[in-house]
Amino acid sequence: MKQIRLTLQYDGTDYSGWQIQKNGATIQGVLEDAIFSVTNDRSRVTGAGRTDAGVHAFEQVAVFETASTLSTDVFLQALNANLPNDISITCSEECPEDFHPRYRAKQKRYSYIISNRTPGSVFLNRYSWQMNYQLNIEAMRNASEYLIGRHDFSSFQASGCSAKHPVRELNSITISDLPSLEFITFRIDTPVIKITIEGSAFLRHMVRNITGTLVDIGRGKYPPEKIKEILLSRDRNNAGPTAPACGLFLEKIVY
Amino acid sequence: MKQIRLTLQYDGTDYSGWQIQKNGATIQGVLEDAIFSVTNDRSRVTGAGRTDAGVHAFEQVAVFETASTLSTDVFLQALNANLPNDISITCSEECPEDFHPRYRAKQKRYSYIISNRTPGSVFLNRYSWQMNYQLNIEAMRNASEYLIGRHDFSSFQASGCSAKHPVRELNSITISDLPSLEFITFRIDTPVIKITIEGSAFLRHMVRNITGTLVDIGRGKYPPEKIKEILLSRDRNNAGPTAPACGLFLEKIVY
Repeated sequence: MKQIRLTLQYDGTDYSGWQIQKNGATIQGVLEDAIFSVTNDRSRVTGAGRTDAGVHAFEQVAVFETASTLSTDVFLQALNANLPNDISITCSEECPEDFHPRYRAKQKRYSYIISNRTPGSVFLNRYSWQMNYQLNIEAMRNASEYLIGRHDFSSFQASGCSAKHPVRELNSITISDLPSLEFITFRIDTPVIKITIEGSAFLRHMVRNITGTLVDIGRGKYPPEKIKEILLSRDRNNAGPTAPACGLFLEKIVY
Repeated sequence: MKQIRLTLQYDGTDYSGWQIQKNGATIQGVLEDAIFSVTNDRSRVTGAGRTDAGVHAFEQVAVFETASTLSTDVFLQALNANLPNDISITCSEECPEDFHPRYRAKQKRYSYIISNRTPGSVFLNRYSWQMNYQLNIEAMRNASEYLIGRHDFSSFQASGCSAKHPVRELNSITISDLPSLEFITFRIDTPVIKITIEGSAFLRHMVRNITGTLVDIGRGKYPPEKIKEILLSRDRNNAGPTAPACGLFLEKIVY
C-alpha cells in the first residue's frame, strides 16, 4: 500500500460540502467514486478542510491509500477523466504514510468575497455575497484585530460543530477594498471587499460567522470594540449572521 | 403602450440559448415569464443577438412593449426579483417605439476565451474552451486578417442558420495572449487566449466556427493563408470545428 496526496480544486455550488453524507453529492463522495472507478478498490479519502455545502476550494489537499501500481501522473489523468467539470485534481504525488493533511497543516487560508452593488453581475452570484451597503472598511479592520491570536471562538462556532474544544488561533485577517474586479479578462465595475483569514485550524462556520459579524460592524450596527465583548461572551447568539456559503473559498493549505 | 429597453447579463450554462424553444429553458422565455409575473401581460421580448445554447452575455439588449405604468426603476427591481440567479437586468429605460435592438445595432462584440492548460482550473470550465496545445498566436493573427471586411461567410455558417444571405462585415479581430488571469481577485496561472470579434451582424455559429478554424491554424494544421481559400470556398466542410459554446461571451452591443 502507498499513500497518494492530491491537490484539488472545486466549485462547491452543487455539492453538500466536503464530507460524505447520506443525502446529496459531496466532494469526498464523488472523489472516492472516481478513485474506485480507477483502482476498483474502495479507498477512504481524508481531506485537510471539511468545507461546508456551497463553499469552494482553490486548493484543497487530500490523501488516500491504494495498492494500485499506477504512476501518480496516470492517476491524475485517470481521476480527472472520472470527475465532473466542477472538481479537478491539479497535482498527484506519493507521500509518506504518516502524512495527515489536517493534522500536518500549519496554516489554512480562507478568503471571503463580498460584491457590494445590486443588481450585481451574474458572474459574481456564484462566487460572492452580493449586498448594497455603505461599509466602513476601517471599522471592520479595527474590529478584526481583536480576533487575532489564540481565543475561545465559541461565539463564532456553528451549533453541531464536532470540534473537541473551541480554542483556535488566528494569525491574520486582511480586508481588501477594490473598486472593481476582473472576471476572466472582463472588467466588472462592482466594488469588492475581500476578507482573508489565516489560522492553523477553524471551527465549523467560523469564517462565515466572523464575516457576518464584520459586515454588521461595517454597516454601523455596533462599534468595532463590541467584537471583543462578543468574543468573550462565548455565545453564538451575540455574533452576527452566518455569511452565505457561496462567497467562501478555501484558498490554500500551508504545510 | 410604451417600449422598454433592457440591458441584461446572463450565464448561459444552463439555458438552451436566447430564443424560445419547445423544450428547454431559454433566456427569452424566462425573461417573458418574469415580465408576465410583474405586469400580468404576455409581452414578446426582442433581443439584439440570439445567443446559442450555453453562450454567455456580458451585455445583451432587449425590448418589450407594455401598458404597465410602473417606473423603469421599479421594473428593474421587480424583474430581477423574478429572475433566477444567472440572469440579471442591469438597466431598464423607456425607448422610442421605432428602436429595434437588432436592426439598430451598429456593432456587436463577441469574445471567445481559450484557457490553454490541462488540467485547468475548475473556475474556467464554465467560461472557456480548455485545451493543451502549442498555439502559434502570430499565425492565428495573420489568418484573422483575411476575414476582416465584407465577405460571404458561408464557410463559417452553421447549417440551419435562418439568415437570408451569408454576407457579413467584420470590423476587427483581436487576439490577446495572456500568461495568467484573474478570477474574482484570485490569480490563476493558466495561459489564456482571448479572441474578440467585432462586426455589424453575425451568422449562426460564426464566431465559434471562426475560433475553431483559427485554433486549427494555431496548431499548425494548415498555414494562415489557407483561411482565404476556406472563405472563398463557401463550404462549411472546409473550415475547422465549432468551438464549444461555454467559451463564448456576447460582450457588447454598440448603437
